[in-house]
Amino acid sequence: MPYHPEEALPAWFLGPRAENAELVERLVIEALRDHVFWRRNYHPEDGVGIREVDKRREGYEAAVATLTQELMGLLAALKRDIPFFSGRYKGHMVFEQTIASQIGYFAAMLYNPNNVAAEVSPVTTRLEVEVAGQLGRMIGYDPGTAWGHLTSGGTVANFEALWIARQVHYLPVAAAGAARDLGLPLEVALPTRAVARLDELPLWALVNIDNGAALDLWQALWASAPHADVGRALEAHSLSSAGYQDYTMRLAHTYGDPLQAAVVLVAATAHYSWEKIVRALGIGANQLVYLPVDASCRLDPAALWERLHMLALRRTPVLACVSVCGTTEESAVDRLDEVLAVRERARRELGVAFHLHSDACYGGYAAAVTWRADGARRTGAEIRATTDGVWPSDEWVRAMTALGDADSVTIDPHKLGYVPYPAGAFLLRDRRARELVAVDPPYLAPARAAPPGDDLFLGRSIFEGSKPGAAAAAVWLSHKVLPLDERGYGYLIERTAIGARRLHSALATSELGPFRAVVLPEPDINIVCFVVRHAAPTTLAAVNDLNEGIYRRMSLGHDGPAPEYIITRTRFRTPMYDGAIEPILAALDVGTVEEWRGNGREGLVVLRATVMDPVLAAPASGVDHVAGFVAALGRACAGALSEESHLG
Amino acid sequence: MPYHPEEALPAWFLGPRAENAELVERLVIEALRDHVFWRRNYHPEDGVGIREVDKRREGYEAAVATLTQELMGLLAALKRDIPFFSGRYKGHMVFEQTIASQIGYFAAMLYNPNNVAAEVSPVTTRLEVEVAGQLGRMIGYDPGTAWGHLTSGGTVANFEALWIARQVHYLPVAAAGAARDLGLPLEVALPTRAVARLDELPLWALVNIDNGAALDLWQALWASAPHADVGRALEAHSLSSAGYQDYTMRLAHTYGDPLQAAVVLVAATAHYSWEKIVRALGIGANQLVYLPVDASCRLDPAALWERLHMLALRRTPVLACVSVCGTTEESAVDRLDEVLAVRERARRELGVAFHLHSDACYGGYAAAVTWRADGARRTGAEIRATTDGVWPSDEWVRAMTALGDADSVTIDPHKLGYVPYPAGAFLLRDRRARELVAVDPPYLAPARAAPPGDDLFLGRSIFEGSKPGAAAAAVWLSHKVLPLDERGYGYLIERTAIGARRLHSALATSELGPFRAVVLPEPDINIVCFVVRHAAPTTLAAVNDLNEGIYRRMSLGHDGPAPEYIITRTRFRTPMYDGAIEPILAALDVGTVEEWRGNGREGLVVLRATVMDPVLAAPASGVDHVAGFVAALGRACAGALSEESHLG
Repeated sequence: MPYHPEEALPAWFLGPRAENAELVERLVIEALRDHVFWRRNYHPEDGVGIREVDKRREGYEAAVATLTQELMGLLAALKRDIPFFSGRYKGHMVFEQTIASQIGYFAAMLYNPNNVAAEVSPVTTRLEVEVAGQLGRMIGYDPGTAWGHLTSGGTVANFEALWIARQVHYLPVAAAGAARDLGLPLEVALPTRAVARLDELPLWALVNIDNGAALDLWQALWASAPHADVGRALEAHSLSSAGYQDYTMRLAHTYGDPLQAAVVLVAATAHYSWEKIVRALGIGANQLVYLPVDASCRLDPAALWERLHMLALRRTPVLACVSVCGTTEESAVDRLDEVLAVRERARRELGVAFHLHSDACYGGYAAAVTWRADGARRTGAEIRATTDGVWPSDEWVRAMTALGDADSVTIDPHKLGYVPYPAGAFLLRDRRARELVAVDPPYLAPARAAPPGDDLFLGRSIFEGSKPGAAAAAVWLSHKVLPLDERGYGYLIERTAIGARRLHSALATSELGPFRAVVLPEPDINIVCFVVRHAAPTTLAAVNDLNEGIYRRMSLGHDGPAPEYIITRTRFRTPMYDGAIEPILAALDVGTVEEWRGNGREGLVVLRATVMDPVLAAPASGVDHVAGFVAALGRACAGALSEESHLG
Repeated sequence: MPYHPEEALPAWFLGPRAENAELVERLVIEALRDHVFWRRNYHPEDGVGIREVDKRREGYEAAVATLTQELMGLLAALKRDIPFFSGRYKGHMVFEQTIASQIGYFAAMLYNPNNVAAEVSPVTTRLEVEVAGQLGRMIGYDPGTAWGHLTSGGTVANFEALWIARQVHYLPVAAAGAARDLGLPLEVALPTRAVARLDELPLWALVNIDNGAALDLWQALWASAPHADVGRALEAHSLSSAGYQDYTMRLAHTYGDPLQAAVVLVAATAHYSWEKIVRALGIGANQLVYLPVDASCRLDPAALWERLHMLALRRTPVLACVSVCGTTEESAVDRLDEVLAVRERARRELGVAFHLHSDACYGGYAAAVTWRADGARRTGAEIRATTDGVWPSDEWVRAMTALGDADSVTIDPHKLGYVPYPAGAFLLRDRRARELVAVDPPYLAPARAAPPGDDLFLGRSIFEGSKPGAAAAAVWLSHKVLPLDERGYGYLIERTAIGARRLHSALATSELGPFRAVVLPEPDINIVCFVVRHAAPTTLAAVNDLNEGIYRRMSLGHDGPAPEYIITRTRFRTPMYDGAIEPILAALDVGTVEEWRGNGREGLVVLRATVMDPVLAAPASGVDHVAGFVAALGRACAGALSEESHLG
């Protein structure tokens, strides 16, 4: 039967009025009873554990009374929770979850599988591997060589990316040491594609071998000597064994020169967790180098080139570069294709190699837009034919298609995958690299005949141990109902992008009494950023106060009446937003870039509306939340101003 | 009404025959409908989003058909999952989950709160803080000064412990540098309790300031100069900013001597994730020093003292010592009181200080046994009065009571808390230390007036970001129904310890035909370890083969008929089990310790039966799984032997 996503969409979510309540209740009960009868069919000869008479004792009744009472209390408390499901919620990157994911989670949770290993999750570990394969294919990875798994969220997934990147970065150094110990004359491909003798390379060259060549070298090493010897020799020269302190001193001793601390380049818009990550890994916050962004908050490829050039002159190694696909604040999608081109140029012209990671925790699922139902890629024109031409640009499609060339990619199903927390995902382009962080044994021979099912002991190769198999079931069932192409997630996310454009253009053109909304450029996905100012001459500080006042009136957790619509705010600060600030300040006609730089942590308060509601694009019934939003914003502006006047 | 835990127990779980199915179904529907009507009551004037006519379209029907069909497929697949709920499952540390936790999880999951910050989880972040407080009180922390939170599991919780420990370890070095820059004449308490001028201390002394004194120094520093200056100065001298590479070189330059890499001491029985953790943090696997265990697999305090003494002589700093409360393999509980006494002696006699962490991921909840309903501690004799005197020893009670003196403790609610994955917990004795890993801003002034609700932005001070508020609701509701004392978890875990003793003694005394089970010492909690041997003269290798054969017949995931009972196995290898192996080999009368050492990764195969089923202690009805287990073991022995003969 032909697939009509516009007709299917109403079946995907419980709905703002819980219109699909009967459906959800039917499926929940189905899953529960199915589990109940599974238990009853398991060794029925064992008899009952809890007798009917046990249920009639005072203590049993008391326990049930406590449970029921406290549950009522919890349910009452939860009514103060956030109405993510409503078209009135335009705050953080969360909306309703798909019915499929909620039911999948609940059904599997009753079994409580633990995806640390198939031994305690024979079903859901397979689902996790399947789901990771689907996400990999969506971003363009080759299923034959890639690998991935779910995590508790984006922080752990990004942490794994950098952890593995570091292992690959120093791998040629370990291999050179091991080859020296074992007397093996190995060769390795340089970034220039020339082949060199490993034992003749200086330290700078060793930390500038690209990932593929480093892993080829690693395989060659294992093939050249008995496994036990290779394992011991690699171990003796690896950073993860020696630890940074001894390793640093040892390199200084062996190579006559301590290696400079390797840096991690990140788009200035990167999530705050990257700082946590480099601090925890021992890389250090000083080595986190923020790259400027352009007016659309995308990493500036020219600035990346300049920085790489400068670092190469100073002989500072680059451990990794993190590009963002869907920034937390603006949903900006870096031009990854251009970033890759810069890396290619750096390889060729500077002899510099590094791990390229795409933090697609937010934007990754938008890659579903680029796939037809028949498995072919959609062109920009094809996609625009289903979005009234408003989105996306051909450049955007190129950037998304480039994800397949990133060495690793992180994607959170619990963001644009519309599934419950916790569900992050880590994807690795060359699965060989995962052996470098596997714990038992630390250096496994790559050629070793893996026992059947070995791939299903995830805890061996990932950071986390115990983790809910229910999360895998949730993502899996959701992908079944919403395929990762134009029929499912592609359609869903397309709708949110259209809705965001409707809101963007309404804000840009609406009358707000004496106020005016200055919008940032059209978002790459679905987060609309804007700043409101009063018509009268004003200052940067006053604009900040006004927008803070608006935010207070349009968010929860503050005194006063419940907000009509819920938004969030961020602050654009120097130096992260240097590339994006000038046109905004000009359009606002307040303050100079210097003033903005000078006010430090204050920066510029920017209001944000995240459109994850697919219905905003074209409401079939009920209120139109674009008009409602703009009207509510007008009232919030007036309220904020009168409050200020009152205070002032 | 008086609390009768023995009468309440039948109400705590769904039950092996799903005897409480009606209760669970009632509560599930209650939670679902309550959520449904919450949505309907939120701005009813917005009208419906999904019309009845939308539900009658072909595409809607198709989507519902797909969802239903795929759910049926998932439910069918899940029937191959593990019957954790059954008395026949004696494998890993997992059993049924409490009804309260399942319902709590489901109820909150419908709202999908994100406990990264109260802004997206106003209800469940408070529940998380409350739950962490309850766990802290259970282990004896002072609620006024301690802090804690939930994590995705034990690995991340233990990672945080070592991450914070490292920050505290190097804090005096940063403080000394900052004080020098700012010209502040500060003093600090040494381990000997003498007070010294900070600027006169050598590096060795700076990394041997105990946690409390280091944090006092930190507060004094903030109080001595403007906050902006202190922040900058601390930042300039902190490891987490500089990164290990620069930091190492800088210390070598400033102090004329590079600091030796600090070691982490762990009980040899520690979970494999500790190796992951030290590798990831950049500490290095070489710095993970395994401490010998005694015959009961508990850390040997005398060996700890000897090691500390030797390290002090060599001037090797100790970053942390990890003691285990409930080992993964044996449920062994280190004598933490004695470990603390050794630390105290090291402080006094060696001038050595370090962070003491208790990895109580498995055993932490057993501390509930030590609490009376009225909030007083129970003595060993009081507890034994409710367990027919079989458990626990007074020494065990002292060890559990000592948890309150550990600098940090990790406890997994998803293990002995009987709640669904994911739920780990990290607990910190002195909450000031969390500021050292907080990201925004990296060095917050401790005296700063916290804005209301600041404590509720968990993402600021913990490693993970987005995380399910539902997990907090699950733990919270479970604690309401099963208090953390003799009425709830205390009673539950007591029962499992009694059951484990029944099984232990049955194994030690039962006839198994020509076979004999050699049991390890009685477990500290509830994991029974044993090795089977044939009566005829045999060898270590043959014993290993026999026990592997038994394991294959008593586990899933292998060909052949479904196992009657499910167990797991581990391998005791050198050097980890050096302290425990001799009596086992002697009782088995096979091989020498040297033979065992020589066979490397083979080691000794040890069978494990985890008793988390509280009913095993005294089955009220149904089969007695102790007798059933022993009989099934006998059949598995015979089967394994005949298979071997057949093969041989």
